[in-house]
Amino acid sequence: MGDVAWIAVDWGTSHLRAWLMGRDSTVLDRRSSADGMGGLDRNGFEPALRALVGDALPVPVLACGMVGSRQGWAEAPYATVPCAAPTIHTAVSVPGTDLDVRVLPGVKQDNPADVMRGEETQIAGFIARNPGFDGIICLPGTHTKWVHTSAGEIVSFRTAMTGEMFALLSQQSVLRHSMGQGWDAEAFATGVDQTLSRPETLAASLFSLRAEGLLTALPGDAARARLSGLLIGAELASMRPYWLGQAVALVGAKALSAAYATALSAQGVPTQMADAEDMTLAGLTAAYAQLQGEAA
Amino acid sequence: MGDVAWIAVDWGTSHLRAWLMGRDSTVLDRRSSADGMGGLDRNGFEPALRALVGDALPVPVLACGMVGSRQGWAEAPYATVPCAAPTIHTAVSVPGTDLDVRVLPGVKQDNPADVMRGEETQIAGFIARNPGFDGIICLPGTHTKWVHTSAGEIVSFRTAMTGEMFALLSQQSVLRHSMGQGWDAEAFATGVDQTLSRPETLAASLFSLRAEGLLTALPGDAARARLSGLLIGAELASMRPYWLGQAVALVGAKALSAAYATALSAQGVPTQMADAEDMTLAGLTAAYAQLQGEAA
Repeated sequence: MGDVAWIAVDWGTSHLRAWLMGRDSTVLDRRSSADGMGGLDRNGFEPALRALVGDALPVPVLACGMVGSRQGWAEAPYATVPCAAPTIHTAVSVPGTDLDVRVLPGVKQDNPADVMRGEETQIAGFIARNPGFDGIICLPGTHTKWVHTSAGEIVSFRTAMTGEMFALLSQQSVLRHSMGQGWDAEAFATGVDQTLSRPETLAASLFSLRAEGLLTALPGDAARARLSGLLIGAELASMRPYWLGQAVALVGAKALSAAYATALSAQGVPTQMADAEDMTLAGLTAAYAQLQGEAA
Repeated sequence: MGDVAWIAVDWGTSHLRAWLMGRDSTVLDRRSSADGMGGLDRNGFEPALRALVGDALPVPVLACGMVGSRQGWAEAPYATVPCAAPTIHTAVSVPGTDLDVRVLPGVKQDNPADVMRGEETQIAGFIARNPGFDGIICLPGTHTKWVHTSAGEIVSFRTAMTGEMFALLSQQSVLRHSMGQGWDAEAFATGVDQTLSRPETLAASLFSLRAEGLLTALPGDAARARLSGLLIGAELASMRPYWLGQAVALVGAKALSAAYATALSAQGVPTQMADAEDMTLAGLTAAYAQLQGEAA
């Protein structure tokens, strides 16, 4: 391992990821732990960070994500749309530690009320990697964000809790008895079509997955894929002003982004994909480069 | 306590309720335990029943609910719509016990696929108490049923998982941080109006409750009531063919039925209410009376 110049950190509710960075933005090492901010009190952050990357400290640390929330290590107040992606100059230095740790702020929208923490850094990374990009970025995940960007700024955004709804319904509701572990592309498409064209049918459609499991032995893979399709179709119906007539950049985990790409392409919407972790690192790197006066 | 002639039992996934009945359909005692069928294996049912009402046995026992499911004490196969409410003559006798226990069947619908177990007995009770009733019965609960009845028969029905969705979202999702314990009637009405008139807005609206909690200190009671309103509004949008231009009988717990009554009356739909437990007992009593050749 070469000389570590700084450490990039993605610190969310349930994960802590760190990249040990060389002077020329090369990644020397990548590490992660389960010490998400959700399980830490204020005194737990420094030990968690030291446990993961203590051998490389002290070097500057730049972090994004829920670590900057009110319940995090240090609150980094939201920037308000329309605004540029976060810069190192708006980062908050964590007080009460000998370490040089800075946290990038999240972004809020006053009306309709919405917030993000972490995704703004992925957006910054995507824009840094795709200079001149102008348009819609969708970040599928637990809380999927739909973001309108223009001239390097976040103009507006909305959040759908589709990922969390899918997890709750497929793992904890009565539907869990009907779920497989696999996938059925046709069942997914059927679900998307239904709620995208008739979003009012969602409420009456979910329990059918259970009933069909009991009465017609609906395969578990089809049930799981149709549930995903019904929820994503309802999300697309809700977010139509974002994607209609647009191209959409999907920034997320591969399988989930692919599901969104399939659903959007059935509506004639072209998509491109980028990995969420890659974009987080790109965003942190772009912000750190501002500090160095280097090109990103 | 007078002589117990028979025992009426409502045995659901999470509860066991029993009424000790006299010869003239008077209730001599009412008991309940947490021995729902969900926590019992096949050998656990008789001990659970004896633990609750053993002092009154052996007398005939008539039960309804999930106890008749495939994972229950004895499977009572579904009747298929259109069909009359279940009768004692379609009840299944539980094998392998010295006790005289019969279980009323549930009701299924092939297309769209749907099932009920327990609600059919409440429907039978409501019809027994309201002879000549013809029309829509809505049974709000974990899985709310909308039922079209005519000439004493169940013609068709649909299920919405609104109660379960509300419980999952308000207690286990990120929205739990924003929830109060109380109620806000205006926030409820706002939620219903929104998703009933524009059901496609549901997906983008849920996370706003969290964002408004963070940004504008939305009171927890308003957040909770609006969440309920958004989900019930979406359900009403889904079930419009059932209630539009109809009168609706609501059979459920008082507070939840009142919420549905408020939402429906804002749409000009008149409602009447009946208590779910009362209707369960009325349905079991009507079925038992068939056995005796008595009037219900």
